[in-house]
Amino acid sequence: MLRHFIEPSDFNEREYDDLFRLAADIAKNPSSYAHACDGKILASLFFEPSTRTRMSFDAAMYRLGGQVLHLGDVKVSSMAKGETVRDTLHIVDQYADICAMRHPVPYTQSETVGVLKNMPLINAGDGDHAHPTQTLADIFTIRDQKGKWSGLKVGFCGDLRYGRAVHSLYDFLNDYDNEFVFIAPEGLEMPTIYLDHAKCPYKEVDDLKAEIGDLDVLYMTRVQRERFSSDQEAERYKGSYFLNPEVMESASEDLIVLHPLPRVDEIDASIDDDPRALYFEQARNGMYMRMALILTLLEAKNETAGK
Amino acid sequence: MLRHFIEPSDFNEREYDDLFRLAADIAKNPSSYAHACDGKILASLFFEPSTRTRMSFDAAMYRLGGQVLHLGDVKVSSMAKGETVRDTLHIVDQYADICAMRHPVPYTQSETVGVLKNMPLINAGDGDHAHPTQTLADIFTIRDQKGKWSGLKVGFCGDLRYGRAVHSLYDFLNDYDNEFVFIAPEGLEMPTIYLDHAKCPYKEVDDLKAEIGDLDVLYMTRVQRERFSSDQEAERYKGSYFLNPEVMESASEDLIVLHPLPRVDEIDASIDDDPRALYFEQARNGMYMRMALILTLLEAKNETAGK
Amino acid sequence: MLRHFIEPSDFNEREYDDLFRLAADIAKNPSSYAHACDGKILASLFFEPSTRTRMSFDAAMYRLGGQVLHLGDVKVSSMAKGETVRDTLHIVDQYADICAMRHPVPYTQSETVGVLKNMPLINAGDGDHAHPTQTLADIFTIRDQKGKWSGLKVGFCGDLRYGRAVHSLYDFLNDYDNEFVFIAPEGLEMPTIYLDHAKCPYKEVDDLKAEIGDLDVLYMTRVQRERFSSDQEAERYKGSYFLNPEVMESASEDLIVLHPLPRVDEIDASIDDDPRALYFEQARNGMYMRMALILTLLEAKNETAGK
Repeated sequence: MLRHFIEPSDFNEREYDDLFRLAADIAKNPSSYAHACDGKILASLFFEPSTRTRMSFDAAMYRLGGQVLHLGDVKVSSMAKGETVRDTLHIVDQYADICAMRHPVPYTQSETVGVLKNMPLINAGDGDHAHPTQTLADIFTIRDQKGKWSGLKVGFCGDLRYGRAVHSLYDFLNDYDNEFVFIAPEGLEMPTIYLDHAKCPYKEVDDLKAEIGDLDVLYMTRVQRERFSSDQEAERYKGSYFLNPEVMESASEDLIVLHPLPRVDEIDASIDDDPRALYFEQARNGMYMRMALILTLLEAKNETAGK
Repeated sequence: MLRHFIEPSDFNEREYDDLFRLAADIAKNPSSYAHACDGKILASLFFEPSTRTRMSFDAAMYRLGGQVLHLGDVKVSSMAKGETVRDTLHIVDQYADICAMRHPVPYTQSETVGVLKNMPLINAGDGDHAHPTQTLADIFTIRDQKGKWSGLKVGFCGDLRYGRAVHSLYDFLNDYDNEFVFIAPEGLEMPTIYLDHAKCPYKEVDDLKAEIGDLDVLYMTRVQRERFSSDQEAERYKGSYFLNPEVMESASEDLIVLHPLPRVDEIDASIDDDPRALYFEQARNGMYMRMALILTLLEAKNETAGK
Repeated sequence: MLRHFIEPSDFNEREYDDLFRLAADIAKNPSSYAHACDGKILASLFFEPSTRTRMSFDAAMYRLGGQVLHLGDVKVSSMAKGETVRDTLHIVDQYADICAMRHPVPYTQSETVGVLKNMPLINAGDGDHAHPTQTLADIFTIRDQKGKWSGLKVGFCGDLRYGRAVHSLYDFLNDYDNEFVFIAPEGLEMPTIYLDHAKCPYKEVDDLKAEIGDLDVLYMTRVQRERFSSDQEAERYKGSYFLNPEVMESASEDLIVLHPLPRVDEIDASIDDDPRALYFEQARNGMYMRMALILTLLEAKNETAGK
């Protein structure tokens, strides 16, 4: 049986702990892993454009000594000729050793994974459903800074409705003893489907500055202008969900600020040098986590093959 | 003199046999070849979009330990600035060690290969003229299953007019003692230019189900909807050229079904698990054949250089 | 302190000499450098499409045993989501070891380089301002053929107004004891901003054939048809700036003809076999120079890190 990573629930707590330890060791001793994937090929199947996540997977595989096989531009690919995702995956299974796949339609990965006989599959984002490797980067950064991922007061700020990074991180943290503050403009609140299965206390508010002082972790997200009905409305909300040096003054010394990136103008660039601003370190951590995940899934395959 | 692979006739029977033996050995002992192209660069020049063939060449070169240099999107490339194919090839000859090239215009490869002083050139498809590395994958799969590529009754079904994979495979098999059945809708029949030089017996029919029982090999191809004058006409033909479990019941136990892929709906996905359905194995074989071809052409170059 | 290569003035004469010596050694003994960048990643950030320069950097890094991380299509990238170049560079600094960047807006590289803590940055072209690695290829070819890059009479022909390759090469040669002949149609003359700081004697003319006999080096460039007000006007100028065998007859035996490529029709293909036509060798030299530059900047980083 191949081991995949499609839903955060595909790993249990002990396995996550192993994964974070491995990522931490990679971050400390990168050269020890420089040839760990010699001769291996990662298929990078992004059925939806992506720059940062795609590059993070590419860099992860290259840093392990492996190669990356790219699907390329979806608009001109076999899919344009009417090929199903299932067939594409079936063909690529003949070529590569492991696969990272993003698709705009939720649950595509779970629905097609059954065709694979050779490659472990990693979910690199499926529509607004989930983005579990982003969550790995988030949790790894929290763990690295706080030494734990429970007992924390975590604020989510911005577009909580469409942000799959928010949904995946919430799902993960909700299984531990945490507390949430959802800071979102009207119409972009955390969907009730997520709140309905909340296991931790939470509150919904609409002003970042009033809440930041109590937070251990602040997870900022991009609010897309096109979500608003007018530019005026967009401008009005900007003030409430905009992190600048003045708002940061109200924050605790121990706050850590995360952001899945790319950002537009919800975090002022003058904060980048603040030691509490960890979003670029979080991006590097994402690469280490992907390295750890690739290694772990390939190792699981080898163990199976050995039996 | 550089050795190229542009027309199937560039290799003789003994050389093909060597190539198939090498591919079979690669398939059996892939790790023995994992560093065979260390430090070598394959230029991937696709002047026409391609997913499967491009990825197959990429994977082939990576599995040999080499690198791939991509031309990238033709629309935004130097060609958009008016550069000739000949000049592009001349420049890339300075950078890479071997080249796979696809071009929408027939015979482009034969017409420009003269400029090369360093790189062997592989034809990865030239318009509707030829696609000889697809044929290598096809023959290798036939040889692997039947132990030979003559004495066979081979059915070609679908779009036989525009399908370059069909034309190249026919040209190859036509040199041996075979028998052909062409199953095509009106307007998409095998072009007379090919039939005129037929050396084997053949017949032209229009119903797959009536013929499948006699076939050793069935080569299915995609019928593009846009070839038909109306949706109704497309629907009408679909029945006759559609492979489903019911049609498969009329087939022999020894039939093998091939398809150059991507498929749309001419083969029902429920057949994929039938042991006679070999189109995904054929895709993997395509990678092994490309590995064998790259190795053979680079070796020929080294031998020449050594003299 | 990281060492970058953004302006030609970032290196002094002794450093250029070292760079050319290194490139010459690489050209002579490529296999000695085949593993020099094992495990290293070059980020290829082309915010403007490019085929030849991008492929040259790719080939350079592959020939050093390293990997290349591509930004990909800018139109579909994070930039389309509103990310700043500065942020993109900041993120990529987490993933890669060195970076080649092209941007359509002049001085983008100098304005954003400050964000980097890890990667040396190479300017692969910034609008019509500069293209210093092209200049390295040009000078290296001149040095290789003439044994020097001073005491030469250099003709620049074609579009001298918008050609950044011309501007960068002029800036370089202007610091040495040379002589220039600018051959350009009306409206495409060398900008006065460059002529105003001329340190060498020069003249501006409009007929290539009349001048070619006196030149040691002829630097041809592409004249874009769309620069002209009409097709007739374009045709009229073509004669004066078109290099064909007849014009070559007036040239000295020691002339060398360079061109940054791609060419359209300003050099007749029948000249390609003339031993004085060195533009394809110049393209190969560009790859060697980029190899030398990558090595030099990575070595400077290691030395700093070691202290």
